[in-house]
Amino acid sequence: MNKSKGRVTLPIEENFLEETKELMDRWGADALRDSDGTKMDEEMKKLHSKIYTTYFVARGHNEFAEQHPEEMQQLYLMSLYNTATESSLKINFLQGYFKEQIDADYVHDPKKWWEVIDRTTGNVIDPASWEVIQQDNQLLIRDAEPWHEYTVSFLAYMKWDPTQMYNHITNNWGDKPHEIPFDARQPYSQQFIRDYLQKWLKENPDTDVVRFTTFFYHFTLIFNHLGKEKFVDWFGYGASVSVAALEAFEKERGYRLRPEHIVDQGYYNTSFRVPSKPYLDYIDFIQQFVARQVKELVDIVHQSDKEAMMFLGDNWIGTEPYGKYFRETGIDAVVGSVGDGTTLRLISDIPHVDYTEGRFLPYFFPDTFYEGNNPVIEANENWLTARRALMRKPVDRIGYGGYPSLPYRFPDFIDYVEKVTNEFRDIYSKIKDAKPYTGIKVAILNAWGKLRTWQTHIVAHGKFYKQTYSYYGVVEALSGGAAEVSFISFDDVIENGIPNDVDVIINAGDAGTAFSGGEKWKDVRLVTAIREWVYNGGGFIGIGEPSAVHHEGRYFQLANILGVDKELGFGLSTNKYFTEKTDSHFMAEDLDVYYFGEGSGNIYALSEDTDIIEYSDGSVRLSSTPFGKGRGVYMAGLPYNHENTRLLMRAMFHAASREHDFKKWHASNMHCEVHAYPSIGKYAVVNNSSSQQQTDVYDGNGSIHNLTLEPSNIIWGEM
Amino acid sequence: MNKSKGRVTLPIEENFLEETKELMDRWGADALRDSDGTKMDEEMKKLHSKIYTTYFVARGHNEFAEQHPEEMQQLYLMSLYNTATESSLKINFLQGYFKEQIDADYVHDPKKWWEVIDRTTGNVIDPASWEVIQQDNQLLIRDAEPWHEYTVSFLAYMKWDPTQMYNHITNNWGDKPHEIPFDARQPYSQQFIRDYLQKWLKENPDTDVVRFTTFFYHFTLIFNHLGKEKFVDWFGYGASVSVAALEAFEKERGYRLRPEHIVDQGYYNTSFRVPSKPYLDYIDFIQQFVARQVKELVDIVHQSDKEAMMFLGDNWIGTEPYGKYFRETGIDAVVGSVGDGTTLRLISDIPHVDYTEGRFLPYFFPDTFYEGNNPVIEANENWLTARRALMRKPVDRIGYGGYPSLPYRFPDFIDYVEKVTNEFRDIYSKIKDAKPYTGIKVAILNAWGKLRTWQTHIVAHGKFYKQTYSYYGVVEALSGGAAEVSFISFDDVIENGIPNDVDVIINAGDAGTAFSGGEKWKDVRLVTAIREWVYNGGGFIGIGEPSAVHHEGRYFQLANILGVDKELGFGLSTNKYFTEKTDSHFMAEDLDVYYFGEGSGNIYALSEDTDIIEYSDGSVRLSSTPFGKGRGVYMAGLPYNHENTRLLMRAMFHAASREHDFKKWHASNMHCEVHAYPSIGKYAVVNNSSSQQQTDVYDGNGSIHNLTLEPSNIIWGEM
Repeated sequence: MNKSKGRVTLPIEENFLEETKELMDRWGADALRDSDGTKMDEEMKKLHSKIYTTYFVARGHNEFAEQHPEEMQQLYLMSLYNTATESSLKINFLQGYFKEQIDADYVHDPKKWWEVIDRTTGNVIDPASWEVIQQDNQLLIRDAEPWHEYTVSFLAYMKWDPTQMYNHITNNWGDKPHEIPFDARQPYSQQFIRDYLQKWLKENPDTDVVRFTTFFYHFTLIFNHLGKEKFVDWFGYGASVSVAALEAFEKERGYRLRPEHIVDQGYYNTSFRVPSKPYLDYIDFIQQFVARQVKELVDIVHQSDKEAMMFLGDNWIGTEPYGKYFRETGIDAVVGSVGDGTTLRLISDIPHVDYTEGRFLPYFFPDTFYEGNNPVIEANENWLTARRALMRKPVDRIGYGGYPSLPYRFPDFIDYVEKVTNEFRDIYSKIKDAKPYTGIKVAILNAWGKLRTWQTHIVAHGKFYKQTYSYYGVVEALSGGAAEVSFISFDDVIENGIPNDVDVIINAGDAGTAFSGGEKWKDVRLVTAIREWVYNGGGFIGIGEPSAVHHEGRYFQLANILGVDKELGFGLSTNKYFTEKTDSHFMAEDLDVYYFGEGSGNIYALSEDTDIIEYSDGSVRLSSTPFGKGRGVYMAGLPYNHENTRLLMRAMFHAASREHDFKKWHASNMHCEVHAYPSIGKYAVVNNSSSQQQTDVYDGNGSIHNLTLEPSNIIWGEM
Repeated sequence: MNKSKGRVTLPIEENFLEETKELMDRWGADALRDSDGTKMDEEMKKLHSKIYTTYFVARGHNEFAEQHPEEMQQLYLMSLYNTATESSLKINFLQGYFKEQIDADYVHDPKKWWEVIDRTTGNVIDPASWEVIQQDNQLLIRDAEPWHEYTVSFLAYMKWDPTQMYNHITNNWGDKPHEIPFDARQPYSQQFIRDYLQKWLKENPDTDVVRFTTFFYHFTLIFNHLGKEKFVDWFGYGASVSVAALEAFEKERGYRLRPEHIVDQGYYNTSFRVPSKPYLDYIDFIQQFVARQVKELVDIVHQSDKEAMMFLGDNWIGTEPYGKYFRETGIDAVVGSVGDGTTLRLISDIPHVDYTEGRFLPYFFPDTFYEGNNPVIEANENWLTARRALMRKPVDRIGYGGYPSLPYRFPDFIDYVEKVTNEFRDIYSKIKDAKPYTGIKVAILNAWGKLRTWQTHIVAHGKFYKQTYSYYGVVEALSGGAAEVSFISFDDVIENGIPNDVDVIINAGDAGTAFSGGEKWKDVRLVTAIREWVYNGGGFIGIGEPSAVHHEGRYFQLANILGVDKELGFGLSTNKYFTEKTDSHFMAEDLDVYYFGEGSGNIYALSEDTDIIEYSDGSVRLSSTPFGKGRGVYMAGLPYNHENTRLLMRAMFHAASREHDFKKWHASNMHCEVHAYPSIGKYAVVNNSSSQQQTDVYDGNGSIHNLTLEPSNIIWGEM
């Protein structure tokens, strides 16, 4: 591989000029960026590179924020559950919240804006029956029903930006001021945000790219009374709420939101909840507002001949890149953190921007760069995982974050990143404009559809959850697979039917969640559309508890397609005859051992029509069932690994009755993949592992040849 | 132990007179009985013993039944689910049923008595839109909605008694006639049943005990098209249905039952379903009818100076011994099969009879008595398990079933039973009238209450189910524990509150089932009654998914008592802090390893108030939480073994805040138990295992002494 230059962004650090020059040279970096906490000095700015400057829109200006406390950002919060033991009940509604983050809003009338709910009945308590005791931060319910539980949904001010709060507490920043977030919807704040940006642009002529981190509203991140994380939802609209927003919503949409529409029984409408109509209306309303406001800031940036880049995270609420209004923002570029293939595709597939950039792991932080640790291992794992996705759709740039003085002390790491940056540029230069060959088209079906493209089963970006990894594996496997992937919602299917070019639909998730679908499956239009489509040849793959809602004797509403259902206990009296595994099956050809993760148990086959491929611990784990000309495939779960990636690819070709196309471009070894680019006449055989691999390669024309690939290696071939 | 006599019943066999005499002598038997398939000859009748004669009320008289086919027993059955692929749909509603068992009822108008349901919408189809094609046993729906699923609920005749069918098929009885069950509600049958009994009594003067097997309606047992079991529900009222019954019900109760009230989405109201009001009305209606009819037969028996004994099984529907009308039947005795401690208590606790008899395992059948097998092992296991319960409340007699010539070839077995029968008589003679000491009073709370005393989580009597053993262990542990056990229903609590003398309530089961309670937990009266009671000092033990129904942000509606709830995916954004185990706990004192069976996962503690005793695989498995003066204990599951019996006993004393009483009468070794009988001044230390055990014995006065017990041994002490 030749030494090449460009498409790489380096973080800077004070007093690190010469070393920065060296790293820029070694890694071919053509852009430098500062961070939250580092500032670029004049010498650095003179280096021959593009300069990104981190810009905070709605925080970091306490001199302004303190003058307008009434424009502080707000939240709707729910108290703990409180059991009444007599007819009066006092609720310390701030209990469990972090005093340094949260203040109750006594500016706006609690009787109008708060809600006290009897959680035993679900009834809202008449505001005449309760009163707020402001000096104690208590709420007193008179005429409470003994032994009922009550909650208070209250409007609060958020007086500390959650990201700065997180960094501040984590890094012991002591008496460094707490940055107060202000609300772009409020008049002074809106004006200030524009004025300050204009002023700042004038004062920062060397900046080429304004790196917005991000815009107005932080994803929901609430700390507890001990200053530890209490609630985190990377998609949460919590901090976008305000009296002004609620009033504007009512005016625009013609109805008033209840606190409960935001508080949602304390679940706060996480993306695992099947979204209610009011909540969908609300996020649409906020997205429109945010897009308009962002557009104004972008225009101001453009007037200074600079680029506007958005960081996908922190204050990104309302800017969803796959949302309806993102195009209108006029943003030039998006940068985001790449933890795996899924997050790479989340960034690289973003439409309507000039370029995308992925910030790769590891961060240059002491938790990785400490004596005795080998950071190359993490870097290599991250690169291999992300590279699969890069081969399908590359980001336009890569970069790193943190303090470069840390990796500088690890020469092997510097060497490794040199290799990675060169490999990235080599891949990019070859496939940038080449659409890779895809053998099959798959749609992920859930309550969110396109809006949450590559964002299914995420709670907090990058965090592992026992309840999600067995589903998250589906998108991770697909992120680097030779499949065309789309995300469609139940409402899409109901309104527009199933797109013509979809071969396979996947529905994966726990019962009741937005990813499985819950009550949505009682919608006749949804189930009939899918049944008709599969019957006429479509493939349906259900993972975990697909189409699950107990209704009319079925738990899986598509049990007739899937050929299996889940025993809830009501059906124990009915014998379950079908437990024999098939001798051989297309889906099973590469696998000896299965790994379904948490999986779902108590799954039984409905009839002998179902081919059971894996049955263990009294439950069908993998099966296939014909339905008309189509097929239904059931899987208990699909955590990510190379074997399950292969299994999913096989399952898709099988479900679509397209087995004959499976090996067109193909590597027999599960640790390898073949990516073909017909428009440029090239293909790549990729070793996704850190060991040497041998594989048969199917080259698209029916010929097979054997290759040996060194660890992590790519071998390019010509068609 | 002295050689003693009596309280033992032997099955007879043809041509086995001398050996029978010998067995009677060895085992001290004082009664002989015939079986389905054996007949007692004259020599045998002359032996000095009581004679039981098996009597079938509603089958075994084809000469009558064939003359009155319109009085054959009936069933409501549901077809398979059928997906419409166009606007007309033909349903082969008998598909999957056994032709030799089932005929469609074309005598009564299908348009009036059948129901066609769109299972996609739940709507009943207008009978004008469908027609039955009788010659093909098909039903044609015109104007079906394509891609909807349809079922037919149809009235059928059951032309073969299920028990005889089972025996016939299992034993290859070839062309032996199929016994046709007739319906005691029909005029000719009712008359025939009485007349025949009178005639029979005259013809059987030697019979002392008429052993009814049983009365009118068999539990639901339906075979499939291959003659294999398709549906079995030991509690099922399926075979009690008829047009006559439905019409009588309407007249008596003032409303008409729909087929769906019986068919119940194909679940047929198994005891795992939370019973609907119409179903409860229906079983009450049948029970009243059955009790009246049984009473008439019992009176006839009494007029012949014989006893009426009821076999608890087969055609026992409507005679539930813990039901409201059992007392009215006048039955003298009940005999039933003893598989474990629970089934022993199920029999021995039966009220309103003169005596009870347990039929012990193993049956004298070739599946146990074959060369090379040691039947003593099974006999000993069965005896040890049942003996625990016997020590609490003995049956009055024991007996065996099958062909005695089989065990006769196993001298060790004959010796062993000699020992068992002597031990039984010894125990019985001592404790017959002595109420054992109970340290604690526990109520099992579910949708069925008293009616299903000792009958929770049973599908088919004696059969293992993966979905039930982790709950069934609760009653099995209690059957031999020093606790007073009652069974109460949600409706009992709602109507009458919690009985004063209950220390602990247990709610155990999977979400949605009758044993957990499902939607019942949305009833404010239920949850408030329990919260108040626990707050004032009661103990609540929840096992598996107690009080589970998703409502207002809680899954466990008693989460405030239990201190734990189950994560369904909606709450993943909320941090779960509390995962640390307590260092020591009263409940944990005897146990090193826990065994929760299938357990329930994703259980988290709500606050630091919860003591977590066992936490594994990301889930709380055992915990305790204070609630006012009371406590809530959570357990993931409780399969039966000696360790879990100890755990449950500890959990009850702990939940009731009565730890100080736990060791009053107590064996330190978990394989041993102490049963005290204050009224006779005796106590028994029992080795429940087949190995020698050493134990400290707490003797009720605070003294402790050490004992060594031989395998299976009992040592009696004086107070």
